[in-house]
Order: sequence, then C-alpha cells, then structure tokens
Amino acid sequence: MLEKRKPIPVGEAVQRVMEYAFQEKKELVPLLQAHGRFLAEDVAADADVPAFDRSPYDGFAIRSVDSNDASSENPVTFKVVGEIGAGFVFEDTVGQLEAVRIMTGAPIPKGCDAVVMLELAHTFEENNEMYMSIKRTFEAGTNISYKGEDVQKGAILLEKGQYINPGAVALLATFGYDQVPVFRKPIIGVIATGSELLEPGESLQPGKIRNSNAYMMMAQIERAGATAKYFGKFSDDLNVCIDVVKNALEEVDLLITTGGVSVGDYDYLPAIYEAIEANVLFNKVAMRPGSVTTVAARGEKVLFGLSGNPSACFVGFELFVRPIIRTAFSNKQPHLRRESAVLGADFTKANPFTRFVRATVSYDNGQLVAVPSGFDKSSAVSSLVEANALIVLPGGSRGYEKGMQIDVLLLEDLQGSEWPWNNIVKSYK
Amino acid sequence: MLEKRKPIPVGEAVQRVMEYAFQEKKELVPLLQAHGRFLAEDVAADADVPAFDRSPYDGFAIRSVDSNDASSENPVTFKVVGEIGAGFVFEDTVGQLEAVRIMTGAPIPKGCDAVVMLELAHTFEENNEMYMSIKRTFEAGTNISYKGEDVQKGAILLEKGQYINPGAVALLATFGYDQVPVFRKPIIGVIATGSELLEPGESLQPGKIRNSNAYMMMAQIERAGATAKYFGKFSDDLNVCIDVVKNALEEVDLLITTGGVSVGDYDYLPAIYEAIEANVLFNKVAMRPGSVTTVAARGEKVLFGLSGNPSACFVGFELFVRPIIRTAFSNKQPHLRRESAVLGADFTKANPFTRFVRATVSYDNGQLVAVPSGFDKSSAVSSLVEANALIVLPGGSRGYEKGMQIDVLLLEDLQGSEWPWNNIVKSYK
Repeated sequence: MLEKRKPIPVGEAVQRVMEYAFQEKKELVPLLQAHGRFLAEDVAADADVPAFDRSPYDGFAIRSVDSNDASSENPVTFKVVGEIGAGFVFEDTVGQLEAVRIMTGAPIPKGCDAVVMLELAHTFEENNEMYMSIKRTFEAGTNISYKGEDVQKGAILLEKGQYINPGAVALLATFGYDQVPVFRKPIIGVIATGSELLEPGESLQPGKIRNSNAYMMMAQIERAGATAKYFGKFSDDLNVCIDVVKNALEEVDLLITTGGVSVGDYDYLPAIYEAIEANVLFNKVAMRPGSVTTVAARGEKVLFGLSGNPSACFVGFELFVRPIIRTAFSNKQPHLRRESAVLGADFTKANPFTRFVRATVSYDNGQLVAVPSGFDKSSAVSSLVEANALIVLPGGSRGYEKGMQIDVLLLEDLQGSEWPWNNIVKSYK
Repeated sequence: MLEKRKPIPVGEAVQRVMEYAFQEKKELVPLLQAHGRFLAEDVAADADVPAFDRSPYDGFAIRSVDSNDASSENPVTFKVVGEIGAGFVFEDTVGQLEAVRIMTGAPIPKGCDAVVMLELAHTFEENNEMYMSIKRTFEAGTNISYKGEDVQKGAILLEKGQYINPGAVALLATFGYDQVPVFRKPIIGVIATGSELLEPGESLQPGKIRNSNAYMMMAQIERAGATAKYFGKFSDDLNVCIDVVKNALEEVDLLITTGGVSVGDYDYLPAIYEAIEANVLFNKVAMRPGSVTTVAARGEKVLFGLSGNPSACFVGFELFVRPIIRTAFSNKQPHLRRESAVLGADFTKANPFTRFVRATVSYDNGQLVAVPSGFDKSSAVSSLVEANALIVLPGGSRGYEKGMQIDVLLLEDLQGSEWPWNNIVKSYK
C-alpha cells in the first residue's frame, strides 16, 4: 500500500540535479548596480595601469644622477623649474640640477627618473626663484610607478563567473566598464504546501502554524543571487494545484515547493509530478534532516520538493538549489564551501544516514571550531539564526566526540567549492 | 611653509571617529524585503513554538501503555479510529488499543502520548475497518514535539541590531512579523577629487586615469549596509567646492571624499574644512597605506577625507567608515572581525607605521592562513579583487616571516568585532 523508497547518497542526489544545470542569459547593468552580481564575460585590460610612468607621492621629480653626491654634510640644491598636477602633462625636458614639483598621480616629466618625497626636501625661495635641497642620494626608479606595472594591456583581469565585489567594481571602473555584462538573475518560484499554514500576517489558530519556510527560502534565494517569486499556498484541490504548478513553471526557471513530499496520504506532490509528467530524479536521500527531499524534472526545468520541516528545507535548499543557481552564473565553485574543523561539542546520536547539523563556526587562535547551534531537534527554528555552517557527520553506528576533526560546509562564504562531495559522505548501503 | 602633521595610532583615530557614532531612525519594511537589514527592535515570541504538542512525523498516535507487550513474536493490533491532517484538530479522546493516523505537524489527540512512525506500523483492513499493528514498545513521549520545546512565549528571540539572515526571516515569519522594524539605511555621500579623473564612460587621455575609488567605495558602502549618493567630481574652483560640500551635507548622514588630503599644494580639502568651520579630528594616522587619512566633523556630521590611493581609500573606508555605519544599526560588533592567522608568505619590508596588507585568507586543514594578495604596491588595484582580509602588521624595525602568527581583519564576514584595536597595534611614538 505504501510506496517503498530507496535512499541514494547525497553526492549522487546532487549530481542528478546538476545534470539539469543551465547558464543564464546576459544583461548589461550600470556599474553602480553591478556589486553582488556575477560577470557574464571575461574582462580584459583595455590599457596598461598605470597608463604612464607616474609619481605615487607628492614631491619633486629629479634626475637621480644629480643626487649622487648629496649627504647630510653636503646637501644638493635643485632649481624648481615648474610644477605638475595630476591630470596634467609637463611638456619640457628637465635638465641638470633642475626639479619639478610633482603631485601624486602625475606623469613623470621627461628626463626625470626619481621622485623625492616632499617630506625629504627642504624648500626655499631666493630672488623670486624656488629651490629645494636634499641630503641623500636617490637611485634611479625611486618612487616611480611604471607604466603597466600593475596591469598590462590585454591581460584578463576577471573571469566570467566572477562575483563582483568592491575590488572588482574598482577594476571595472578603471577599464571603462560603465555598463557591466552580468548574468541575469534566475527566477525561482516558491509554493508552500500544508493545510496547517497561516501567512505571517494572520493570527494563530488551534492546530495551525505560520508559514516560515517559504519566507526563509526566499531569503536564501536572494542570498544565493537569484530572484524569488512567491505563488502562495497550495489549495486543497489537487486539480487546482496541478494548474498552479503548470502555470508557475511558465514563469520561473526553477520551482520549489516546501512540504507535501512525505509518504503520508495527504501529501499529493507525487500525484502532481505524475499529472504534469515530470520525471522524478529521486525521492529519498540518505541524509538527515531532509531524507524525503524529492526532485523532479519536466523538460529542462527542475522542481524541488523540499521537506516541510524547517531545518530540512533549509539544508535542502543549500545542498540542491544553491549550486544550480550559482552554475547559472557560470561560477566554478557553485557548492557550499567545504572546510575541515574541530568539533566543539559531543554529538553522540548515531544515525545510519549522513547528518547535516546546523552549526556556528568560530576560530580558536585561527583554528576553525564548529559547535552545533542550540537545540537540535529538526523542527527547531531558532538555531537557524545562529548557524553559519553545517557540520557533516557521515552516517554510521557511532556518535562523534568533541575534539574530532570533521567537515563543515560554510553558509556565509562567497567562495564556494567546486565539488565538496568526494570522500566526505560514505555511501549508504 | 608646509604643515607639520602629527600621526596618531589607528585605534585612537577610530576612537575619535566613533565619538560621532549615531543611531539611525526606524522604518517598517515588508518581511520579503527584510533580508540583509538590521533589526531596530528586540523580537519576542508572541506564542510558544510548537504552539501545541504535535507530531514530527507521519504515523499513528497511540497511548504508549497499549504498546507495553508488543514484540516481534507478539504484535499488538490497534484499531484506527480516525485520521488527522496538519492544521486540523482531533476532537475525541483516544481509548484503549485505538490509534489515530496522524500527519507531520498535526496536534497529538487527547489520550495519546506517543507516535508510531508510519514505517514501523503494519496496516490492514478487516470488515471495512482499518487496523495497524506494531512489533515493539513505545515509551511515553516518543515522537512528540512538546508545546514550547523550541521557543517559549515571551522569550527574546532576536536582539535589536541583529543582522537579518534567512534564519532570522524564518523566525520573524513564525512570530507574525509581516512588517519588520529595521533601521533606515544611512545615506553616505561620495565626492571624488582630482583633475586627473575621468568617469568610467570616458576615453583615456594623456596623464589622466579613470575614477575607480568612488565606484569601489559605493560598493563598500552597499556592502556595509548603507546607501551611497554620488556627487561627482570636485570642480577646480575652491568656492564651488565649498558650496558642493555644504549642500551635500544637507542631504547625507556622512560625507566621504577621496583624494585631496595630501600635504600637496593642489589639495585644498583642508581649505574647505576651514571654510565650512569643520573641526579636524585628525589628519595623519600611523598606518600604511592611508597615513594622510583626514577626518573632520561639522556639527554632528562627519566628513571622511580618504586618500586618493586606491588601497588607502579601501582600507580607510573599512577601518573608519564601516564601524560608524554598523553602529547606526545598533550593531554591537561594528568593526571588522579580527582573528589570528598564520602568515603564508614572507613580508620582509619593515615599516615604522602599522601596515594593513590586503590578503587572501584560506584554510589549511581548518587553520586560517593569510597570504598577501598579489602585487603589493599601494597603487595596485588588481589585488583588491582577491583580498578577503587585511593582514595587520604592527610597525617596527623588522619584517615578518612566513609561519608567524599575525592578526587579520576579515572583510567578507557578517559577524564583526566589538573593538579589534586592543593589543593589536603598537602605539606610534
């Protein structure tokens, strides 16, 4: 009477989902809106940086050879023959024992090969002429930023798929990208299931709870870089649900439902998948929480059936949905970043399935330590706030003790992993 | 002729700025827009979670006492007297050897004190009645999520100043916050200075460079949680600049200028500060890059005069502007997060001033390792992209070697530090 489901290992489940990964279209956005997006093209330098030899400091440009005899006992005096501000070009050639007052960023005048920092020059006026003297020698090249020493013309500066952080914005500005090619944000649909659900604005009623998963997930979607579209709650009428799913699929790139995937009689997501002729990729994963996670595909579009349990829903999103979003941005490390950490508390409960424990990672003298966040029954909502990582505990017959080396997946990281699932999770037999 | 400036230690400079810290006004935003903002009020639970004893699984609710004699050899059979979906309430009291089919999240019926998971029950029909049998005992409390076991009514769940991550969104939804009190985003004005500057959309010209600092900083402002307002580039006419600054101050909470703070003749920011009667808090800091960083205050508003050098500008923003933005959100850890790390490469250049080196931190088996990012002349722009931390090297007469324990300030972290400046940076004498 009840369907028997065969659990598959997490890595295999992620792999089946990733077969449906796609790349988003490009769009151009103004530079001021590019922060937080992902580059849709390689960015190459259109010019050297610096574009000319320039002074990194305020001071005096000189011919270094003229400073050869300078010392405390024997200061050398230069005649100041001009000055040059950043943005301007000094047209003459500088001669013997001549100096040009130069501002930070200004081009080095012809003839000069060193800059004396302002603080090291003694300036004075005599007969309406300006002079400056120095008490040490300056080697050729002192305080000169050479053309192309930072970036050479033609160099690939940023690769397609790069996350645009403030430093990347600076580079884009430097190379004239006032419009930036970025990947469009995929649109991820969200539908909640459950007769027990109230929206956050509704008053509590006996037996009912407020819908938190859909809102949590919309924030996760935003954090992953995509746009969320909320379709509200499923009706109790199966045919209505089928229409809602069909219509939603027209408007979104991926569709997520929360709840309705258990083996219970009231959970008719399997019936919906059948009705819309979606191909179920898996409906049981060897993991806790979230073993009932179900993923189906209809044509090129993936339907994620996440558990209605808040932790399972949270974990399911990060493991299965996030990487497909990041891959749409051509990002090469679309999965959660995996690192090694010291377990900061006992976790004695053994489990045949791989367990993902919400955790707070911190540093003990630079060493990553992971402590399970608060109360850990899988229905707990409050520990989700503190969690900035998931501890991965491979399934087995024993618990884990404080001080053991374990793997963590970092939630608030921008870097990600290329494929975190090798040698991390034992296969479930 | 030239002004002599006295450098002050970084910690003291930050402290002088923080005396002008302020708290922003509150505003209500819809829950769907709350992600990434900061809570302007404590959030307390308006009800227990769970709000009633409920089943965490699909299965059968029973009286545990009835299972006392069950075993493989002696299965005990229950009559299924009803079923209850999530969101509904079972009105009758369950009697001896009776069971109720119960869905995940549904309230436990009166009389029952345990739930048998569906997988452990054998169901069958006889004479149009439903039955189920079990082969083991279930203790009282098995598979029951008790009222209030996750969160108790009245408990403070989130404190004012909390960053709203997806977990916090879930909590807000659970407790009915369809409108969320958050701090308004302060408006930070940005003005670029320098005759050499072109906007990103302009073609390069001899001696000129494109303005990257203003755009970089607007991304940093956004990352810190505030709103940037760009006032373009300063005119070459001092009186026009004075008017621009005066007018900008009417529209913003803080004003940042980049460039124009060196001791050079062309840098007239000091003249502007004087003209608008701003009080200069400091104009030299014992740090590299950014020693010329100048901060002034006019009334309650702070004017940040950051260096025109890209690295100095970047560092100056993170050290001086970020904490005042985060404090506007009542955040208790407004400064960059400080951690200990292993230096991953030699840094042999000694400096009398404390040096902030852009760096990439990564993990070596869970141990934080910091490597200076790329080419490290202070004019380099490209290394800013990779940098996710600043290495802090206290000033002194020696360099630093690979393997030494050093301090880092993390740039892409959400947590921050309360005050990172104790015992980190030696005073400059």
